Amino acid sequence: MKQTKITLEENEIPERWYNIVADMPNKPLPPLNPATQEPIGPEALAPIFPMALIEQEVSQDRWIPIPEEVRQIYTSWRPSPLYRAHGLEKALDTPAHIYYKYEGVSPAGSHKPNTAVAQAFYNKQAGVKRITTETGAGQWGSALSYACQHFGLGCEVYMVRISYDQKPYRKLMMNTWGAEVIPSPSPQTEAGRKILAEHPDSPGSLGIAISEAMERAATDPDTNYSLGSVLNHVLTHQTVMGQEAIKQMEKAGELPDVVIAPFGGGSNFAGLSFPFLRMNFAEGQNIRCLATEPTSCPKLTRGVFRYDFGDSIGMTPLIPMYTLGHNFVPAKIHAGGLRYHGAGALVSQLLHDKLIDAEAVDQIESFEAGVLFARAEGIIPAPEANHGVASAIREAKEAKEEGKKRVILFNLCGHGHFDMSAYEAYFSGELHRHELSQQDIDSAISEIDTPEIPDTAA
Amino acid sequence: MKQTKITLEENEIPERWYNIVADMPNKPLPPLNPATQEPIGPEALAPIFPMALIEQEVSQDRWIPIPEEVRQIYTSWRPSPLYRAHGLEKALDTPAHIYYKYEGVSPAGSHKPNTAVAQAFYNKQAGVKRITTETGAGQWGSALSYACQHFGLGCEVYMVRISYDQKPYRKLMMNTWGAEVIPSPSPQTEAGRKILAEHPDSPGSLGIAISEAMERAATDPDTNYSLGSVLNHVLTHQTVMGQEAIKQMEKAGELPDVVIAPFGGGSNFAGLSFPFLRMNFAEGQNIRCLATEPTSCPKLTRGVFRYDFGDSIGMTPLIPMYTLGHNFVPAKIHAGGLRYHGAGALVSQLLHDKLIDAEAVDQIESFEAGVLFARAEGIIPAPEANHGVASAIREAKEAKEEGKKRVILFNLCGHGHFDMSAYEAYFSGELHRHELSQQDIDSAISEIDTPEIPDTAA
Repeated sequence: MKQTKITLEENEIPERWYNIVADMPNKPLPPLNPATQEPIGPEALAPIFPMALIEQEVSQDRWIPIPEEVRQIYTSWRPSPLYRAHGLEKALDTPAHIYYKYEGVSPAGSHKPNTAVAQAFYNKQAGVKRITTETGAGQWGSALSYACQHFGLGCEVYMVRISYDQKPYRKLMMNTWGAEVIPSPSPQTEAGRKILAEHPDSPGSLGIAISEAMERAATDPDTNYSLGSVLNHVLTHQTVMGQEAIKQMEKAGELPDVVIAPFGGGSNFAGLSFPFLRMNFAEGQNIRCLATEPTSCPKLTRGVFRYDFGDSIGMTPLIPMYTLGHNFVPAKIHAGGLRYHGAGALVSQLLHDKLIDAEAVDQIESFEAGVLFARAEGIIPAPEANHGVASAIREAKEAKEEGKKRVILFNLCGHGHFDMSAYEAYFSGELHRHELSQQDIDSAISEIDTPEIPDTAA
Repeated sequence: MKQTKITLEENEIPERWYNIVADMPNKPLPPLNPATQEPIGPEALAPIFPMALIEQEVSQDRWIPIPEEVRQIYTSWRPSPLYRAHGLEKALDTPAHIYYKYEGVSPAGSHKPNTAVAQAFYNKQAGVKRITTETGAGQWGSALSYACQHFGLGCEVYMVRISYDQKPYRKLMMNTWGAEVIPSPSPQTEAGRKILAEHPDSPGSLGIAISEAMERAATDPDTNYSLGSVLNHVLTHQTVMGQEAIKQMEKAGELPDVVIAPFGGGSNFAGLSFPFLRMNFAEGQNIRCLATEPTSCPKLTRGVFRYDFGDSIGMTPLIPMYTLGHNFVPAKIHAGGLRYHGAGALVSQLLHDKLIDAEAVDQIESFEAGVLFARAEGIIPAPEANHGVASAIREAKEAKEEGKKRVILFNLCGHGHFDMSAYEAYFSGELHRHELSQQDIDSAISEIDTPEIPDTAA
């Protein structure tokens, strides 16, 4: 019999997170205070984050120990399995060897709990009583609800109104774990009330939901805020995936030629690829790390590298990022987790330094890939995950054209059980291609009024 | 760190299914031809089942080899993990040790693919082109769709109209795997047309859907029919679960005092418990095997042991079963997979011989148990699975009252990702208790007009 799953024992769950800052040839630039354009200090984040996470955010240490309590919760689903995609290889008739790390085994069904559990732990330790956050598609809100439940923390999730109405199952999942889910804009916050006064029927947006969640955290001393991607500490927490994958690829007796992950804010991609980049830095390997973004939101492949806000309203510090501008509104594709205007600072610097690659995939190609994958492998991927599948299929087809073996590893970051309506839209022919014109891109970029990155950083 | 998951390697997937008939002190009585009331021969089943499965249905062999192709597909999710329920034990503050076998890791999200894959394999081998089946809640239809897709077989699922309308995500899951899903009653069959002529708005029923699927199989030589529970070969296929669990309990260094599983037609319960019953038969162990049924459909605890039809229309052979009568219509509880009037022949004989136990749980208790479980363990169980959780909690509470350790193993047979609306109904207080009066039971049983079981079988 052919081995399908390469598994690890619970005592092989990583004992530390990998902080890539220690190995980056050019360190990421500091975030700036938007008012003064001076670098912000840790104290600026203290009203909404616990100090332990702020320290991780600015840490230069290569390795950050994972608390035993966090590793204990990780045992509920980690180590996650690494699959050899025998079915997909056969369907593509390719000489490539395709592997995928499957993160859909977590209770919330994606990689998001890897950081949610860590964030809930440090907040609990700091005496915080409640965490607020925003959620669009619902993956992140679910993960944080699960994590807060474990530590007995309250969890208040501001869910974009239109998602709240369209995805009742995601909301119910959060309720089942005890979270309060509030359709945003809501009358609970100043920001929400202001929007509702002008637009009582507002469908909401991630920007508005962030504002509501941050306002609640900033105004209530017992309440903190939590973010599911973009920030350095979030990306670092996700490196448990890549560290496990390295051990699993070793057990399989192969080294990947290319490591692929879908790209929204960067945590999925960073989590799998950073430990492999470490092999490039420390061992002189030449593993290609490839981020896949949707053509409808192509900040990595068509955006600019400059300071920008992390949210769309302009409440956050200025972050050095590849961006399409914080006012950019991507098309309403079903991969809600990838509809984000910018990339985290770590990933942006690495891309700028040409240490990683990026490509864009249209949603039609992504669903074609997802359905092919589901029929060949069984697992039905989340719409976000389909972007990684699509890139893996491109690589496997190239290998076939070349007639050469290629070892491909991608992150199957979540299942699609709560996204079947997206498949319905695909099957019924309702989906459109979203190729942006150069004029669209130029116009988005010309609206950016935040500071440029100093030349010395290049 | 405490170990949470006890896992096995792929080469530990069982190599044979366990056929309990070989060890039963009283063999199950043969099914009867309803017209002649004579035992039917294998040839009666040949129009709708492949010969390999008919042979398994009547086999007296203790062990049936699992074909390598089937074991190869099993590697996509098997061996499934055994969990130690640390979170639940803590929540209950019990001296009991609670373990659960988690079958939600299969692509279709339940234990059903264990037999679906085997059935699709033997049909493919026999040159069949298409399989029909019925589905209510959708678990079985999903599993068969997945299995047929793998072998390139067509799959036609007659889905009870009301479920088709209420559970669009289940339908889409089947579509994603390439199956055709037809709301039943349908104009595609004689049976469906007859119903529609009288009731154009019929919500359908499992009985009607079975009639439609069987008619299609009986009238098309390229098409066979497939059943997801009740029959001997189906129960036998599921014994991979119990065989794995025995190895995993050995690794954990414990032997269960009680083995628990939810009960619909019997495959879930048989799959986990039969290999443990083998330990009772062959090694003189005294492991209690406990089936949990809903109070709204209590055939094991309040039904009668006699011949009855497997379907509600009377198309099947007469099967010796604990039954409430094939015309019994249980309340519309959300655990659709447990709304079946009878129990398979093997399980019925074992219950009659007092070799297994049964108890009934109300749906309110089952959802209370499911929500407690989800908050303590993370995984959100299917409504069917919640019945097993409820019995496990009862056992753990008893152990606490006694102040004694008790080792409890139950089957967490599937996740609830496609059943969140059931949780919504629970949270919103819409669910009712369904305790049947003795009059209800007497009335149902008095309507049964099928033959009694001869006394000599007792």
